[in-house]
Amino acid sequence: MKNINLGLFGFGSVGHGLYTALDQSTGFKAQIKRICVKNKDKSRDIDMQMFTFEKDDILFDPEIDVVVELIDDAEAAFEIVKTAMENKKHVVTSNKKMVAMHLQELLDLQRKYQVGILYEASACGSIPIIRTLEEYFDNEELVQVSGIFNGTTNYILTKTIKDGLTYAEALKEAQLKGFAESDPTNDVEGFDAKYKAVIIALHAFGIVVPPTEVLNFGISTLNEMDILYAREKGFNIKLSPIIKKTSEKKLALYVLPRFVNSENHLYKVENEFNGVIVEGKFSGEQFFQGRGAGSLPTGSAVLSDISALSYNYQYEYKKNTQHQTHAYTNDADIDIYLRFDDDEILKELNFKEIRARFYSPNHNYVLGTINLLDLRSKQQLLLEQRLFCAVLG
Amino acid sequence: MKNINLGLFGFGSVGHGLYTALDQSTGFKAQIKRICVKNKDKSRDIDMQMFTFEKDDILFDPEIDVVVELIDDAEAAFEIVKTAMENKKHVVTSNKKMVAMHLQELLDLQRKYQVGILYEASACGSIPIIRTLEEYFDNEELVQVSGIFNGTTNYILTKTIKDGLTYAEALKEAQLKGFAESDPTNDVEGFDAKYKAVIIALHAFGIVVPPTEVLNFGISTLNEMDILYAREKGFNIKLSPIIKKTSEKKLALYVLPRFVNSENHLYKVENEFNGVIVEGKFSGEQFFQGRGAGSLPTGSAVLSDISALSYNYQYEYKKNTQHQTHAYTNDADIDIYLRFDDDEILKELNFKEIRARFYSPNHNYVLGTINLLDLRSKQQLLLEQRLFCAVLG
Repeated sequence: MKNINLGLFGFGSVGHGLYTALDQSTGFKAQIKRICVKNKDKSRDIDMQMFTFEKDDILFDPEIDVVVELIDDAEAAFEIVKTAMENKKHVVTSNKKMVAMHLQELLDLQRKYQVGILYEASACGSIPIIRTLEEYFDNEELVQVSGIFNGTTNYILTKTIKDGLTYAEALKEAQLKGFAESDPTNDVEGFDAKYKAVIIALHAFGIVVPPTEVLNFGISTLNEMDILYAREKGFNIKLSPIIKKTSEKKLALYVLPRFVNSENHLYKVENEFNGVIVEGKFSGEQFFQGRGAGSLPTGSAVLSDISALSYNYQYEYKKNTQHQTHAYTNDADIDIYLRFDDDEILKELNFKEIRARFYSPNHNYVLGTINLLDLRSKQQLLLEQRLFCAVLG
Repeated sequence: MKNINLGLFGFGSVGHGLYTALDQSTGFKAQIKRICVKNKDKSRDIDMQMFTFEKDDILFDPEIDVVVELIDDAEAAFEIVKTAMENKKHVVTSNKKMVAMHLQELLDLQRKYQVGILYEASACGSIPIIRTLEEYFDNEELVQVSGIFNGTTNYILTKTIKDGLTYAEALKEAQLKGFAESDPTNDVEGFDAKYKAVIIALHAFGIVVPPTEVLNFGISTLNEMDILYAREKGFNIKLSPIIKKTSEKKLALYVLPRFVNSENHLYKVENEFNGVIVEGKFSGEQFFQGRGAGSLPTGSAVLSDISALSYNYQYEYKKNTQHQTHAYTNDADIDIYLRFDDDEILKELNFKEIRARFYSPNHNYVLGTINLLDLRSKQQLLLEQRLFCAVLG
């Protein structure tokens, strides 16, 4: 595949980043042949001739080799990607929700139509984590993968801990800077981080985890007492997905706030940066840090995937095709901090062990061990009562 | 290539690590068919039938597909590797000196005989830096690559700064722990770090830099006053190769001690760990950390290369084959701290600017800008006078 013709869906921040990165690439040249956008009235800063409002103009154009899908809507994106693959076009996407929600279908489509879909930009921005798991850790048994996968929440948390803002103030600042959307649910409740963790779990452990099975508890209930507690104990607060083996054949995955001390690599990952810790049986702990968001970093991750396609690269999902794979479980004990109002919730939550209890007029908390199944079944209750919990360590 | 037969040269620490990692690999299986060692009298903890003392038993065995070269002697290693490649065998090696000293010849051998040589384990242990540069940053212009590439010196420096040992005490401890050899020159004078930097420079910037052209100034002259200075200023001391563009077409590379502040990723890379910072034009700063040494981490890096060969992976040296490449230069200005005894040396060194001078009975230093060409021409003089210099920032 020498002279690649690209068809783009969407021309927002990432699309602009790709356009610039492509323009200034030192290596191969690919051309954007067509860009399909929704809004007919918006003025565009490049040649209007390139734009179309009909998706079929790209999907059924035999001259287009690679479809680059960069739109927001996950379900519309999946329809585009599916049609593209059925029409024997390779796909590059940065849409984490679409990929995570349709992992098994995307695996099947690749096998059926013998085309590739690459999505490095969907997980942890410019950190080449999927490629590294796929190509470098393919033969090593991994024990745990964790990290900071969402730049928006990390920006908010940095502002609360470091600059002393309240959660509400920090969220507002993030929105003003364009890091958070007007409805921040997807980021602050941990959905975005969960989708990325589900994608990473496939490449690290070979297992397709349905996102609906996975607990995501976000940072929207964080209050001043939690921040004070963390600061006094020398912790930083991070929203951190953890993907870990709980036994030889079982894998757990959860997204929760986490108190990390200064010995943890994630402690110093600040603002919109992402970090990933990969723990291998032999190689020990590897740490990767990079920009988790932004037009150019994400655009260049997309470009790197396009370039890989030009060398006929496809994910081989080696861990998935190896015989020993894992079963997903939520039956895992975790140590948490829980801020609560009323003792009643402690009984509901069925803690396995409570090691410390603290009561005061404006702050009650416990430190203890709880099973993920129990925590998950009461998640809604915690949110309704605006309680906050965080994994310890 | 399905059932890979391996021929090993050397069975020290890395060889043992490979043996264990291979034995417990979750994925593909490769067999070690033969191991060539030098010492006939040493007792071995695996089946003696596997060993030979004749290199031709491996090099001319048609059943052996991949030669794994893990011996110390760089020149003997090159002869083995050359013969193996001439005999159409792929090669995996962890020998940084051999690779760095023979880069161009290895490029030529690969092209001539259409076989691959992979050497991920030669640079930064278990950090997949070469693969990442080669496959992920292939189309992005890089600005700078720097880091901590040598675990031995980093261990020594950690002990001096954190635990208050003198350089001599820390070196002794490193030797007792097996991190440093009885003649530590290769590590402490920065040769090892330089070889790794030369290898990385090829994959990051596409240029073959002769190691003899590159300044390496190590840590052997570090004394208590330097440590005190760093500590008072809040610096950590690291031996850090820097590979950087000095202009659109020029690339400089130097290995020097470096004072880094707590904002630098390298500040917290302690003990035998390695770290690499890759600065891309679009992706910004990426940081990678992992174990720089050790039997299993290095053994698993070797295994990962063997696995890649089984998928017909070879380095494509994309930056080297792209038209715009760089010329090497030592004409670069750097900011340094220099501890000195006598003002005479300052004239000799031809500083471009001296921004601070400090004189006291037991410690004289300057902070200033010097050209690498000037520093390099007086390197021997600095060593003879046991002076210490470090890059600032």
